[in-house]
Amino acid sequence: MPKTITLFGAGRSATRFIRYIQDNSVKNDWMLTIADRDMQLLKQKQAGHNRTEIVAFSLDNDQLRSDLIAKADLVVSMVPAHLHIVIARDCLEQNKNMLTASYVSEEMRALNDEVEKKGLLFLNEMGVDPGIDHLSAMSMLDELRGKGAEITGFESFTGGLPAPGLEDNPWQYIFSWNPRNVVLAGAGGAVKFRQEGRYKYIPYHQLFRRTEFMTIKDYGRFEGYPNRDSLKYRATYGLEDVPTIFRGTLRRPGFCRAWDVFVKLGMTDDSYVLENTAKLTHRQFANLFLAYHPSDSIELKLMHYMNIPQDSDLMEKLEWIGLFSNENVGLERGTPAQILEHMLMKKWKMRPDDRDMIVMFHKVDYVLNGKSHTLRSSMVYEGKSADETAMSDTVGLPLALGAELMLSGKIKQTGVRLPVTPDIYRPMLTALEEYGVRFVEQE
Amino acid sequence: MPKTITLFGAGRSATRFIRYIQDNSVKNDWMLTIADRDMQLLKQKQAGHNRTEIVAFSLDNDQLRSDLIAKADLVVSMVPAHLHIVIARDCLEQNKNMLTASYVSEEMRALNDEVEKKGLLFLNEMGVDPGIDHLSAMSMLDELRGKGAEITGFESFTGGLPAPGLEDNPWQYIFSWNPRNVVLAGAGGAVKFRQEGRYKYIPYHQLFRRTEFMTIKDYGRFEGYPNRDSLKYRATYGLEDVPTIFRGTLRRPGFCRAWDVFVKLGMTDDSYVLENTAKLTHRQFANLFLAYHPSDSIELKLMHYMNIPQDSDLMEKLEWIGLFSNENVGLERGTPAQILEHMLMKKWKMRPDDRDMIVMFHKVDYVLNGKSHTLRSSMVYEGKSADETAMSDTVGLPLALGAELMLSGKIKQTGVRLPVTPDIYRPMLTALEEYGVRFVEQE
Repeated sequence: MPKTITLFGAGRSATRFIRYIQDNSVKNDWMLTIADRDMQLLKQKQAGHNRTEIVAFSLDNDQLRSDLIAKADLVVSMVPAHLHIVIARDCLEQNKNMLTASYVSEEMRALNDEVEKKGLLFLNEMGVDPGIDHLSAMSMLDELRGKGAEITGFESFTGGLPAPGLEDNPWQYIFSWNPRNVVLAGAGGAVKFRQEGRYKYIPYHQLFRRTEFMTIKDYGRFEGYPNRDSLKYRATYGLEDVPTIFRGTLRRPGFCRAWDVFVKLGMTDDSYVLENTAKLTHRQFANLFLAYHPSDSIELKLMHYMNIPQDSDLMEKLEWIGLFSNENVGLERGTPAQILEHMLMKKWKMRPDDRDMIVMFHKVDYVLNGKSHTLRSSMVYEGKSADETAMSDTVGLPLALGAELMLSGKIKQTGVRLPVTPDIYRPMLTALEEYGVRFVEQE
Repeated sequence: MPKTITLFGAGRSATRFIRYIQDNSVKNDWMLTIADRDMQLLKQKQAGHNRTEIVAFSLDNDQLRSDLIAKADLVVSMVPAHLHIVIARDCLEQNKNMLTASYVSEEMRALNDEVEKKGLLFLNEMGVDPGIDHLSAMSMLDELRGKGAEITGFESFTGGLPAPGLEDNPWQYIFSWNPRNVVLAGAGGAVKFRQEGRYKYIPYHQLFRRTEFMTIKDYGRFEGYPNRDSLKYRATYGLEDVPTIFRGTLRRPGFCRAWDVFVKLGMTDDSYVLENTAKLTHRQFANLFLAYHPSDSIELKLMHYMNIPQDSDLMEKLEWIGLFSNENVGLERGTPAQILEHMLMKKWKMRPDDRDMIVMFHKVDYVLNGKSHTLRSSMVYEGKSADETAMSDTVGLPLALGAELMLSGKIKQTGVRLPVTPDIYRPMLTALEEYGVRFVEQE
């Protein structure tokens, strides 16, 4: 009997998942069903493959959703994260295992007892971040603890960046995933973490000034700014008593200082709609946030307000991105954040030949036999083009390899889970290596 | 027949209101009923006065509330602002006029048509700010417009500050009203105003760096930071097309730059509760928001992070307020804003002999017969002690004079209203002058 994998959602990051399942479908006797609203997208993803069935589908069609899940051996959900729960409830009712690449929501977590009782597994956070970060971090931590080491610090960073070679972009940044999430990154509350046993809090408006630097072999220097959720995985990782725990996002050095200008000016605010924006130019957009002066230029007012020296590379970055241009923004109506996103897209949207990369970096401080050590582990994965991005590969691959592992019957745990146990991270990391997701460790 | 004034709420700012009504009760044949939860407070306010009745009262006692309103000729509400609506609905049902010193809420505004239909008047914003600011601003604006002037700019500032003589307080600030509102001032959204025909937006974290300076005769220099609601009264004041409109709050010069340190550090955040605060010292509280360093002092880290020169008066202010002290905060649990408020109270709480003052300043630019002019108007009212504050006098007096005016039957308008018309502001300003609320104009 063939096994049916049913995928909900055929968006960009599903590409690599679908290819892997198709490429391995004969060997494993898999059938793939893809359900999405967009028939054109579905046809493109099907690509004439004879073991792939496509279904035009809307999530509010309860009957069709239920029928599709009934026929599945494994359900993979790549719909927008807040909608997983609809599919999860059906899976629970129909006794189906489920797989996602998204953070476990409160609603999803609440299903745990019922999922466990039925002997099912709802495996989440099986993308890149969250996903590959869990696999690699837990592998490192468990190995060290297995040797008897005491963990004294854990830092972990991930970033989606352009691959080397994009010399004409002074920000060294392009949008390899949802631009809105990049613009709003860190907004909405204070950052919380622990350093040397002390709690530390950073308000959003200071986030991009509190960065750390690191070097990754063959790829040079990076800077990391803190994520909002550094303490989130304390218990999951068994790091409740570790004095330092820090999770962050990687950028190229100088990005954060320049991004901070947008934050400080108030351009990343998504809470109110600006007045009279229909004919606004980039330059006028900047001026909304600067004090009135009868004669000073916008450049001068900005340098003065933000305390930027005239010869700083910051001004070059702001000019390159078009902040001082007389071009129309071209959005009828919007919040500051929406206008900013629209402006940034003009320069940061990936061109067909642009290549991105995913960079991951872990640093573990530990004490073994009375001696202090630091272990660093890094991974860089480069994309091939704007269609085959590192971002979509590193989300789709672990999800596909996770589907294979779940269908193999080798995972015995049940409930609503993350991939933080050896029965999952060992085979996953081995399989990922074959596809170029390779961690390099350095003492 | 005597007329009964029924007051709900006998808190601090009711003091001057009550005294005025009592002092004028024989002349006008008034009876005063005061309803409050706190019997001790009521007895103190009654002070044996034979025309004052006191009633122990809880707002959720529908029957008693209804009975009290039934017996009233005028209802004055000084309960917390969000509760006025409960009393307003009863007044509407029982055909009673109503008076408050609070901003008109959306719910209150929604009653307008019904209030009008019944020929009633619900007069609001009859305190100091809002209140005296409306009276004085509208008087100036109408007079200028009556002469044929075109208004080109309107700025208005109010502040509650210590009266001159508090030499040992480098902030030149004390809490003369609700400390929580001072700590959270400006938080919760971007500031919006218009300057020279251009919209301007300031995010909260920059608010205290965008100040204006002004001098008031005999009282010296002040600085003003923008209120969130500068555009709010555009239509009410008939200033829809005025290129510059700005409303702000007054402090002594240097206050805002120092307060900005609290804002920038994240200490005014009220959105999350800090961990492990039970034994926190002031100094440790500061350190929560500063980067970890194995040896640098908190003072040094703060100066570096906030770019403060070592010899700046800023450090003197922060030290005076106790930010670097080893004293316990003394709050079991709290948000950063609650901890900060608790710390500030130790120094800014009014001592019995401390005196406050209310400072109001309007600046109107206008063109008359082709020539540009600027008219300034200012008012300073000094309090007598921590019991008889300028803050409570300037809220209670206009409310009492407003009650007298309403009971005189001279106001013909109906509906949910603000005091922005000559039938109200003329007699009010004349009466207020007698009690020391005096505006000085200067071309």
